[in-house]
Amino acid sequence: MKKYAIGIDIGGTKISMVLGTSWEEILTCLEIPTQTGANTKSCIKELVSNLCGLVQTAGISKKKILGIGVGIPGAVNAQKGLVPRSPNLPGWNNLPLVKVLSKATGLPVRLANDANAAALGESLFGAGKNSRNFIYITVSTGIGGGIIIDGKLYEGSGFVAGEIGHMSIVPEGRRCNCGQKGCLEAYASGTAIGNFVRERMTRNNTTIWKFLPGNKRFNARQVGMAAREGDKLSIEAYRQAGYYFGIGIANLLNIINPEKVVIGGGVLKSAHKIFWETMIKSTKQHAWPEAFRTVRIVRSQLKGHVGDLGALALVFKNQ
Amino acid sequence: MKKYAIGIDIGGTKISMVLGTSWEEILTCLEIPTQTGANTKSCIKELVSNLCGLVQTAGISKKKILGIGVGIPGAVNAQKGLVPRSPNLPGWNNLPLVKVLSKATGLPVRLANDANAAALGESLFGAGKNSRNFIYITVSTGIGGGIIIDGKLYEGSGFVAGEIGHMSIVPEGRRCNCGQKGCLEAYASGTAIGNFVRERMTRNNTTIWKFLPGNKRFNARQVGMAAREGDKLSIEAYRQAGYYFGIGIANLLNIINPEKVVIGGGVLKSAHKIFWETMIKSTKQHAWPEAFRTVRIVRSQLKGHVGDLGALALVFKNQ
Repeated sequence: MKKYAIGIDIGGTKISMVLGTSWEEILTCLEIPTQTGANTKSCIKELVSNLCGLVQTAGISKKKILGIGVGIPGAVNAQKGLVPRSPNLPGWNNLPLVKVLSKATGLPVRLANDANAAALGESLFGAGKNSRNFIYITVSTGIGGGIIIDGKLYEGSGFVAGEIGHMSIVPEGRRCNCGQKGCLEAYASGTAIGNFVRERMTRNNTTIWKFLPGNKRFNARQVGMAAREGDKLSIEAYRQAGYYFGIGIANLLNIINPEKVVIGGGVLKSAHKIFWETMIKSTKQHAWPEAFRTVRIVRSQLKGHVGDLGALALVFKNQ
Repeated sequence: MKKYAIGIDIGGTKISMVLGTSWEEILTCLEIPTQTGANTKSCIKELVSNLCGLVQTAGISKKKILGIGVGIPGAVNAQKGLVPRSPNLPGWNNLPLVKVLSKATGLPVRLANDANAAALGESLFGAGKNSRNFIYITVSTGIGGGIIIDGKLYEGSGFVAGEIGHMSIVPEGRRCNCGQKGCLEAYASGTAIGNFVRERMTRNNTTIWKFLPGNKRFNARQVGMAAREGDKLSIEAYRQAGYYFGIGIANLLNIINPEKVVIGGGVLKSAHKIFWETMIKSTKQHAWPEAFRTVRIVRSQLKGHVGDLGALALVFKNQ
């Protein structure tokens, strides 16, 4: 009986692979650095060779493997099986990854957006178990999401459903990396937290370095460290991000009315309490009362493995 | 073979009823005024007697009627079959309408939120035909919506999915009728259009009355008339509403990525072109490009019958 699958999460800096079962038994996993641009070809070669190594290490027959799931950033058209355009993966654009991997391994391959795969992972293995309708949101450098409706991944008509980070929450507001203004990502992501502190430091001629001995540069993680040390500016940065993030969640509750919202991503690690408390308060303030009353907002359970286990879930769910 | 159904749309001022088929053949329809408060009981009595009259007028046997669908404002729990709390229907709150109507008629009754029913109506008879994923939005006194996913009505976990009017689009913005601040409804509804002109008239000591001979009071419809006559303030009111409405649609596109958005409601009748053009421009400005590229934004096809035909569709769809 075929009961194993492989999950591959392709990110801008690393590729994580896992071989496991539908009941969350991980046989083996590994990571390789992502190579882009002119090195993309050699990276694919390395990926394929590592896939074979993964199966050998697990010590199981390839016949027992049902297939390969791949999570990757961008608007993934599962039917076409091509890598979509992404600023973090130059050289990968339009690569026929499904064809390449299925030819090299002889296994069926399913491609999906990484946040969508993560939602499916939480649905099969994590905080979304037993929930028919829920939303997974990741808050790290950017903000992404995946939507599960009636137990199935909902990808939308153009495979871009769940583009939560680019929901407009402040008309003509802060410039976002996507080129638009006022997106949720420009207010509540790790990048936004870093930018907020940097701007305030320049404007008010102040600094948070005294809270960060030995650090040479900072991002949301360092701001989180300073916040935990009691730095007021850093606390304000996390509170502001939590406030705007709560608006984004409230809008999702009013539109989709899910039974659960599962939140993952690096920002939660850094200054979890300040961010979380402000976020819940703001969600309650902005949501339709009935939608807030009927939802549970919880943290991701898969954490570091949400990417590769999510990709693996693509094989077992939604076939 | 049972092929007929009855649709009842219960609004704050009138109740519309229709008897028809699943292929949009209307045999007969009628309207009665909605009575509330102490008169609710007599209104229900009148409703039941009119239902019997409707069947007699149509000249068909009751045996051929599959059931009754009822659309009503608020968060309708279809399982419980009770009328939800609504400010426009005092006295109706918690009324066991499904039980009352099925006992009186001997027919199965299905209750749903009126905007959700309208979405189902457009799906069966109107602009949503052949669309698997689409959103219906009505813009009149308030803003409501219904979501069709995979050809089926999506009501959410607490029956409040599609509460589009209370999406937050301006943090700490204008006060909405719901008590929150910054809701879409406070910026883009007919009420918002009237309020905008009223406030500007007071603040700038100006008037739009010269464009409205014979009118004694005004709402969005009169502002629309003045806009068509070239009144700058009225045009600005419709443009502003269209701009904010476009933000709301863009957010829906980014989250749900539907293949179609169907828009109905009185605001479109009044100053259709100004509102529509600004709305489309703003949607394009604020939406994720791929989500905008893959959607068609169209007008409701059922118009005046969207309420009762929507209720009728409840019988034929989602069983």
